[in-house]
Amino acid sequence: MASAESSDGSIPIIGGTGALGYGLALRWAQAGLGIVIGSRSVERATEAAVRVRSAVPGATVEGLGNDDAARSGAIVFLTVPFRAQSETLNNLRDALEPGQLLVDCTVPLAAAVSGRATRSLGVWQGSAAQQAQEMVPEGVTVVSALHSVGAPVLSDLGTELDEDTLVCGDKKADKARVAALIQRIPGLRAVNAGPLETARIAEQLTPLLISINARYKTHAGIRVTGLPEGELWT
Amino acid sequence: MASAESSDGSIPIIGGTGALGYGLALRWAQAGLGIVIGSRSVERATEAAVRVRSAVPGATVEGLGNDDAARSGAIVFLTVPFRAQSETLNNLRDALEPGQLLVDCTVPLAAAVSGRATRSLGVWQGSAAQQAQEMVPEGVTVVSALHSVGAPVLSDLGTELDEDTLVCGDKKADKARVAALIQRIPGLRAVNAGPLETARIAEQLTPLLISINARYKTHAGIRVTGLPEGELWT
Repeated sequence: MASAESSDGSIPIIGGTGALGYGLALRWAQAGLGIVIGSRSVERATEAAVRVRSAVPGATVEGLGNDDAARSGAIVFLTVPFRAQSETLNNLRDALEPGQLLVDCTVPLAAAVSGRATRSLGVWQGSAAQQAQEMVPEGVTVVSALHSVGAPVLSDLGTELDEDTLVCGDKKADKARVAALIQRIPGLRAVNAGPLETARIAEQLTPLLISINARYKTHAGIRVTGLPEGELWT
Repeated sequence: MASAESSDGSIPIIGGTGALGYGLALRWAQAGLGIVIGSRSVERATEAAVRVRSAVPGATVEGLGNDDAARSGAIVFLTVPFRAQSETLNNLRDALEPGQLLVDCTVPLAAAVSGRATRSLGVWQGSAAQQAQEMVPEGVTVVSALHSVGAPVLSDLGTELDEDTLVCGDKKADKARVAALIQRIPGLRAVNAGPLETARIAEQLTPLLISINARYKTHAGIRVTGLPEGELWT
């Protein structure tokens, strides 16, 4: 398995044809990282990879089925809609291996059951991330991140990012590896928000920002003030 | 009843001897606004008023029982701990009058029932603010704000604020009146976060920031990025 941190490794993005996953693919491609876009449909994954290469000439990106994508890197990003999270993780049971990190970016918006995007669903385990941790094979560790970063902003390479993302997980070392990848995207800072259970709150930032977006016709993000300058992960 | 917006009006702070209420009193006193500190104990309210005058010479501040305090201004701030919210509102039933705004700042931290301050309680109505709206006399409107502003930062007049506070409420005009008072504190920007039900999320920022504070040994706050420059309440 390629290391996601090595310069020639790849970052698998499960659901990478969706808005968030595709935006991340663009930004990481621009930063020179290799990407594997995963989709239920290999055709759509391949199409998305072509679009990334067209937007970022020279990008190292390929499109694969979700299971092959999940095998292609140590740190796997899950960017499917909440509606598809459970089914996707079921389908990945044979693909994910002990030692991998799964970065869950899903948010239980009520929109998943035709409710409002400014409201959220109660998840039995407490958060989408905790549901993911329950579903992944033993030895796979879930980290939760990237809830509050808007897909439209990510996808518009002309927009400079200037915001934070909260990272929740039970081990700081795991979070730091994820943070290092996230911070390869210029203008995006990763903040250690606590254990995985704190995803219960971090996931709620999405409906909150959607509510703020509606009021100000913008794509809002979050900054945590009062943090020390410089490196947050030493 | 004095108008809270007029230059000679007063801002009642119920629970103003507590950390958050006292910090707000200091900041508003410094901004030249009149304050009425409310407490169950008139003595403690009076003592707190003396302390404010000592920290901010020339401050217009007095200490009263909660019920008399609640009668002294159009916009009443409720800054008691969640544990005391329900009892306090019961006791204010004859003091609050139709047309008043009650700004609920309480947060249902699990610490209220000897749990962790990084966790929160589920409130039947959805949020502390919605519980407050259920309990106030008819004609009193609840607005929710100031959850993420740290009391230690407010109380340290040497620290310049540089953060936002989310304001939730069902009518923009009510929120705008509250925002105008909040923004009398330099460095504090009030952001329209949506209807009162959004307090379910805004209240969760407190345990989130407490979790971040523990990791970075700081007093963190929140900034919403991507908002238009300038006035947010036109």
